[in-house]
Amino acid sequence: MGKEETTEGLRVTDQSLENPWNLWYNELNRGVAGLTLRVDRVLESTESEYQRVEVIQNKVFGKLLVLYGSLMVADNDNNAYNEMLAHVPLFSHPKPDDVLIIGGGDCGTLTEVMKHPEVKRCTMCELDKMVVETTRRHLPHLTAGTEDERAELVFQDGKKFIEETDRRFDVVVLDLSDPVGPAEELFQKPFHSTVHDRLKDDGIMVAQSESPYFNQDIVRKMYANLNDIFPIVRMYTCFMPIYPSGLWSFAFCSKKYDPIADFERARWEKLGLKTRYYNAETHVGSFALPQFARELVG
Amino acid sequence: MGKEETTEGLRVTDQSLENPWNLWYNELNRGVAGLTLRVDRVLESTESEYQRVEVIQNKVFGKLLVLYGSLMVADNDNNAYNEMLAHVPLFSHPKPDDVLIIGGGDCGTLTEVMKHPEVKRCTMCELDKMVVETTRRHLPHLTAGTEDERAELVFQDGKKFIEETDRRFDVVVLDLSDPVGPAEELFQKPFHSTVHDRLKDDGIMVAQSESPYFNQDIVRKMYANLNDIFPIVRMYTCFMPIYPSGLWSFAFCSKKYDPIADFERARWEKLGLKTRYYNAETHVGSFALPQFARELVG
Repeated sequence: MGKEETTEGLRVTDQSLENPWNLWYNELNRGVAGLTLRVDRVLESTESEYQRVEVIQNKVFGKLLVLYGSLMVADNDNNAYNEMLAHVPLFSHPKPDDVLIIGGGDCGTLTEVMKHPEVKRCTMCELDKMVVETTRRHLPHLTAGTEDERAELVFQDGKKFIEETDRRFDVVVLDLSDPVGPAEELFQKPFHSTVHDRLKDDGIMVAQSESPYFNQDIVRKMYANLNDIFPIVRMYTCFMPIYPSGLWSFAFCSKKYDPIADFERARWEKLGLKTRYYNAETHVGSFALPQFARELVG
Repeated sequence: MGKEETTEGLRVTDQSLENPWNLWYNELNRGVAGLTLRVDRVLESTESEYQRVEVIQNKVFGKLLVLYGSLMVADNDNNAYNEMLAHVPLFSHPKPDDVLIIGGGDCGTLTEVMKHPEVKRCTMCELDKMVVETTRRHLPHLTAGTEDERAELVFQDGKKFIEETDRRFDVVVLDLSDPVGPAEELFQKPFHSTVHDRLKDDGIMVAQSESPYFNQDIVRKMYANLNDIFPIVRMYTCFMPIYPSGLWSFAFCSKKYDPIADFERARWEKLGLKTRYYNAETHVGSFALPQFARELVG
């Protein structure tokens, strides 16, 4: 107990005065194992038309966006996920003129795509406008790419957009939240087939494909479906400390280009991008799968 | 509230009857971010001469060994750490006759080393006999290698052992707990210099080198020291869901052999080992460092 002249014995001193709030965020696999974060502040806690939208603050990770109860992106996580989702397909395609992002509401992937001068037009089709607005308010470095005149934001259901568009894309990026809630249908075979049909003859689709450690049934099924649709399907991974298990995977699906044989290393070197995760080595090395992951994708 | 004839209103029913024990294990970085695990059972909770030694059980990871308050190894984590620590140096050396492991009390690394028929003798020098005994009781698949007649266990301080031995090794593996407590000195330059001197002229030392995400100061200092001692120093990584941040690193330090140019792929393929993480692709790909990690090691 603390000791002070007038309140001796009446003051509890075992709380942090710096932040007297014992609030924790826990995101668990099967309810029994996962990430725990002490929350300094809840900056947003609201509900859009589609989902819960929250922004919390933690001393290690900085500000974190939470959608539908899952951590999406953090100030201090080196942006591995967005860099790997954007740069791996774009540096595997010799002429990525026309790019479509489905989902990606935090705009981090769009912002990475806009760093490629080759891209003439990039449409981001996000269902939930509130995700963009919330990110812009709290994590503006992620939404910087929306200012680019080549960037175009469409707020619409991604499935409807891809079914109705008469455009043909060089690269389509599926930057979706988990296959539960609003994004569920966008992990299924009919949707992937439609994306395939909207790609040019040498087009590339990449999709985030969950944790090969915690979501093995989803991963196995998703890659079996993708292998039915695309001639080239390769898993690559990145390390993401705020995602379940810490290991995250992406499906590289292509009609023509191989992500390693056709990697445009010279273009990457010439461009001189400042990155925190992606580089020529991780572009190639991220396709080296741990044995347990390789066995999942067949 | 539950309802029963004789105890109506007197019985609390909001606990899980399957496991009415709300025990959680939290391992945190800076006290604010980390791993949380629901603990089904505490199988051991004791103190050796050197440290706390605990074994807990969780539904996702199975049994987990905890030393000095840090998770060391789990039933269900695919053994990535042990496989990468043992096989990367052993498949980079053309004739690994004589191997020394310092630390490694859970014996997982020793068990991986013993899968190499080229190894004629492997000494494991562990300070704390209780770690070996506890692991043998609860995670016997990890200690299987101790039955091999080429394996030799010495219970002694690793620093004293390496200073006094007149043997010269092909490969030395530093399989140490964190640089706090009993292992602290074994992360320092004088110790690494002595290991260097006890290697043959074409010897290889590998050391676990903490998380390049959470332990950047340690990593930077450690690699600066190693670069002063060894002509070839390379970081490689693996994904470990039970280790802080989920990304773990290893220092490959060598007098002659390069881990990629001298990788004995044919020997790996011929041996046909069953692994869960290591394979020819991860051997090479694990040296592809994320940009933020590359900047740490200079």
